[in-house]
Order: sequence, then structure tokens, then C-alpha cells
Amino acid sequence: MRKDRVLLSHGDGGALTGKLIEEVFLRRFDGGASKAAADSFVFDPPPGRAAITTDSFVINPLFFPGGDIGKLAVCGTVNDLAVSGARPLYLTAAFIIEEGFPLHQLERIAASMARTARQAGVVIAGGDTKVVGRGQADGLFINTTGYGVIDPAAAIGLHCLRPGDLVLVNGSIGEHGLAIMAQREQLDLSGQLQSDCTPLNRVICALLKLCGEGVRFMRDLTRGGLATVLKETATGAGVEIVLQEPDIPVRREVRGMAEMLGLDPLYLANEGKFIAVVDEAVAEKALRCLKEHPGGKEAAIIGRVNRGAGDLLLKTALGGTKKLDLFAGAPLPRIC
Amino acid sequence: MRKDRVLLSHGDGGALTGKLIEEVFLRRFDGGASKAAADSFVFDPPPGRAAITTDSFVINPLFFPGGDIGKLAVCGTVNDLAVSGARPLYLTAAFIIEEGFPLHQLERIAASMARTARQAGVVIAGGDTKVVGRGQADGLFINTTGYGVIDPAAAIGLHCLRPGDLVLVNGSIGEHGLAIMAQREQLDLSGQLQSDCTPLNRVICALLKLCGEGVRFMRDLTRGGLATVLKETATGAGVEIVLQEPDIPVRREVRGMAEMLGLDPLYLANEGKFIAVVDEAVAEKALRCLKEHPGGKEAAIIGRVNRGAGDLLLKTALGGTKKLDLFAGAPLPRIC
Repeated sequence: MRKDRVLLSHGDGGALTGKLIEEVFLRRFDGGASKAAADSFVFDPPPGRAAITTDSFVINPLFFPGGDIGKLAVCGTVNDLAVSGARPLYLTAAFIIEEGFPLHQLERIAASMARTARQAGVVIAGGDTKVVGRGQADGLFINTTGYGVIDPAAAIGLHCLRPGDLVLVNGSIGEHGLAIMAQREQLDLSGQLQSDCTPLNRVICALLKLCGEGVRFMRDLTRGGLATVLKETATGAGVEIVLQEPDIPVRREVRGMAEMLGLDPLYLANEGKFIAVVDEAVAEKALRCLKEHPGGKEAAIIGRVNRGAGDLLLKTALGGTKKLDLFAGAPLPRIC
Repeated sequence: MRKDRVLLSHGDGGALTGKLIEEVFLRRFDGGASKAAADSFVFDPPPGRAAITTDSFVINPLFFPGGDIGKLAVCGTVNDLAVSGARPLYLTAAFIIEEGFPLHQLERIAASMARTARQAGVVIAGGDTKVVGRGQADGLFINTTGYGVIDPAAAIGLHCLRPGDLVLVNGSIGEHGLAIMAQREQLDLSGQLQSDCTPLNRVICALLKLCGEGVRFMRDLTRGGLATVLKETATGAGVEIVLQEPDIPVRREVRGMAEMLGLDPLYLANEGKFIAVVDEAVAEKALRCLKEHPGGKEAAIIGRVNRGAGDLLLKTALGGTKKLDLFAGAPLPRIC
């Protein structure tokens, strides 16, 4: 039994469990985590409505260009809260670790979580650690659950969509999914392509402050990508959404590599991108706001909401019209 | 590909994912879950302080006498909130499923979660579903994260312990851990022994209502069992705790089987037991309250708090004194 690997006894609730939690997690995580180690994290909820969301992260590989499972686990839940119009305040982090997992990797991941949480301005307020035997999990899975307070400026929801509203995206799509797939296929990325994984709460907060009720609806573009999210939006709101293919920002290297791998960027996962459906009257202002924030240089207006019954249409560069559906190709498991 | 098993494409965020979530989870879970399927569950926090706690459940086997991983995942988090003095309101539930997992088992587990949540009076308000490939997880892991509001009658914490306080337990110990171990060892339990897995929030609510600030501290007796929890309590509060071994309720069949398996009931996990440290003045009243609730017939006063520096002592039936430490024997992995 080498000392630099996670042992089964790190998970039995005894002395070694306490040591692991203290030395790997608590000394890195800010705020309440130490008090939460026992049972619950207690806090005074700020005034206003609250939001909760949960997500498990099972990504493979654990480290990838542009991030790692820890950064992803913080960004994913922060972003789910943010697109719901909530200001993220607290996260819990629960780890399922395979026996034999290298301790230095766990430390690197914990450090990455701590750094990303500080960047987003959230506190990792509680946690849980379980260890399973060799072959009973694939290295490491992380669950994060987030608590936030709804931004008073937010009046968003599928029911808010109106014909004439415009669809904005905050940057180029497909990078996260492709970076993962390329690494799995052991393609040489030559540093050109990395995951877009980043917390979105600050840009969304600015957008809501600027445009208020002009922002009708937001979603982050994770599993299933842009097309799946907008198809769900169209169905959920009972409208038609028409996308202009030439306006959708896709970097050249993403286009090329996606073609090589037989993948469609419209369905590739992103971890730092979201769509905002906004009132036409605030669209230009909203676009400028997105462009001013990190990673938003390629933000664009990419589509429009029409009266309809749940269709998502893509107007192609050559003037054709394609109906897009939910993702239904070969699954890309463990992409997030 | 048989239709009655979970497929990788159930986890890709597309049409099949939606179908799985709708048909297995949403139709069983009350309340907000359907709206939370997209991003976040939004609610109005009731007045008062709030508590959050998280736990992952990796138990093996998934079904055991007295419960299953679903019941356990609800009870575990409900109980963590309850012993913190919080009234549990909402849970999130996140599933990591191994490809090929039988759908009918997933349905049975979801039904069990729904039933237990109703019993405890909590709403399963959001969720997440991930599928990993064969051999990348062992069947099913569940994370639950809970949100509750602190009971106004609760004034509890390690700092509240005073010399002279008494330690109560709400019933006999060791049953959960032993039921799991016996099933793993394929011992015939002949129905004598089953997990004590149950939500504790109602009995704890009654106890707080009755005894108010007379209740100093509570903890549920999961990983590491009674001894580990009380050792942590003694250390954390900087007191000595003395247990009277003959007063600790352990059923005869647990005693016998634990001996056979070489296990110590003091360190076995429980999923429906907690300790309450109470002011001596309310101890008899508190004991009656515990005895009136389901599973509390064997509730007992088992120890006392003294001035000290973190020791947990066991006075044995023969008058000897044993110092107890955190669990440090052979690990019993995946017991909860």
C-alpha cells in the first residue's frame, strides 16, 4: 500500500477519512467547509427567491486542455444557476474515488476547484468523500450542488419568449466536446484547441443588470450542445426558432477537426457558452455586453423566435432549410 | 441492445435521456422535479436560517433487508439535516448509472425514494442522470443534497455541551452495518435482522419541540458507528464522554452475529439511529419522547459528559474502563 494513493480506509469514516478531508479539501476550500465537514452547512439566506441545482461530473479524461474535472464541476453548477437567473453563493462537493487513485491528482483537482470557486465568487460550503474498490468506479466522479439567490433583475422563463425575440450566443461553439474527443482519440491538438470551461455568472449578472426583463430566457450549452438546447427551448415554449447557420460562431479548427471525427459542432458540448433569448429592442446592447466579457469576442446574434409549434430550423449558407432535432446520434459518453 | 437496460444513449442529453428522466424519475417524484429537469429548482426560502448537506451513496448490495440504495439516499440526507436542527424541505438526487443496469431495478429504486421522501415530508426538487460505460461504475451511485430550515427551537452545537449532560440514543445499534455485511457474506438472516434505515426528522422535530435548548447536540450514527461519532464529539467539544456499556442497546442477534463476523457493534453503521446530548434536567422527558416514536422502544440513556480533553471512555459490565478511538480497523467499504 503506497502512501500516495487513496486507500479504502480513506473512506471508512475513521481517522484516515478525517485526515484526507482536512489535508486535501478543507485546507484549500474557503469559508464554511470546515464546519460543514460534520453534518450541515448553516447560513442566513439572503432576501429573495432561491435556486438549487445539482450535477454529477463523470468526465473522461480527468485532465484535458483548458481544465480538469474539478474546474468543470464548479463551472457546470455555477453556470446552471446563472442561466436560471440566480447569483451562485454556495456549492457542496461530493467525491466518489476509486481505490488507488493518486493523491497528488486529487490535490491538483481540489486546488483547481478552489481556484475556480474563488474566480466565480462562490463558497464550497460542504462535502462528502466516498472510496470504492478498484474497478468499481473509473478514477473519480464529482457531484456539485449549488445554491443561489435569484437576481431581482431576472424575469426569465420559457413562458417569456415572444415572436420577434432574438437568440444570442456568447461565443464560438463546440470547443469543449471536441477538445475531449480529440484527446480521447489521441489527436495532436498542437495547443490550438482547448475546452471553453469557465464560470459564466459574472457576464450573466452584467447582462441582467443591463437588459433587465429584456432577457427572456437563458441556457448553458452543455450535453447535447446548441441544437439540443434550442430544440428543447422551442418545444418547451411552443415557438419556432430559426437559426442562421452562417451567423453561428464556429472556429475554423473546430470545423476541420469535427469533420475529421464525424461530429457536428451544433451537438457538441460546451462548458463556457450559453444562449440568451432577448427582446429585439435590447439585442444590440446585449451583444455588446457579451463581447466585452472574457471569451465573448465572437458573441453573435444567431437566430429569431417565430410563432410556431416547437420546431428548430437551420437556414444554411446556401439558402436551404434544415429541421434540427434532439441529439440522437452515437452517444458521446462522459463528455462532462 | 435490450430495451430493459440502461444504455449509454440514456446519458447523452438527447431524446432518450429525456425519456428516462420523465418515465423513471419525474412521474414518481412529487413537486418541483419536473421544472427542475432543465436547470434549477426555484423556491421561496422560509424565514430563518438555512442548512445544506450532501452525501453520496455507494452501498453494495443495492437491495438489502430493510431497504435499498434509494431509501438510504433519502434517509441519509434527511437525517443529516435533522441532527443539525434543520427541518428538511428539499432534496436533489443525482444518479450515476453503469451501462446495462436493469431498468426495472432503477424504477424500483426511484419508487422507494419517492415513498421515503413522502414519509419524511420532503420534496425531491431536482436531479441529474449520468451513464458511464460497463465496468466504469458498480451498478448505481446516488448523490442526494438536502436543503432545510433551522428549527427555531434548536440551539445546538458542540459548544453547547456542558459537564453533567447526558447522552441518549434512540434505539439499538449495529443493525444496518450488520445486515449489509451478513448479506455480503451470504449468511442466512432468517428475517431476524434488517437495516434500521428510516427518516429521523419527525422524532427529532418532536424532541426539539419538547426539550428546546435542553438539547445540546445531535449526530446520526452512520459511517464509523456510535464510537466514532462520540469520539469526534468528545474531541470537537473538548470534553470527556463516559459510556456505560451495559446501557447501550444492542440486540441479541446483532451481538451474536457481530461476534461471528469479528465486528464490533460500537463501530457498525446505523441509518436510523442518532445520539442526543441533553441537559440532565430534561433527560427523562427526552427519553420518553424517543420511546414514543417508531423504532424507539429501546431508546436509552447511555452516557455522561464530564470535564476533560477529548476522551471517550467505555465502562464495561465488569467495571473496567476502556478508551475508545476513531474507527481504525479493517475498512468496511460501501456500507452506506
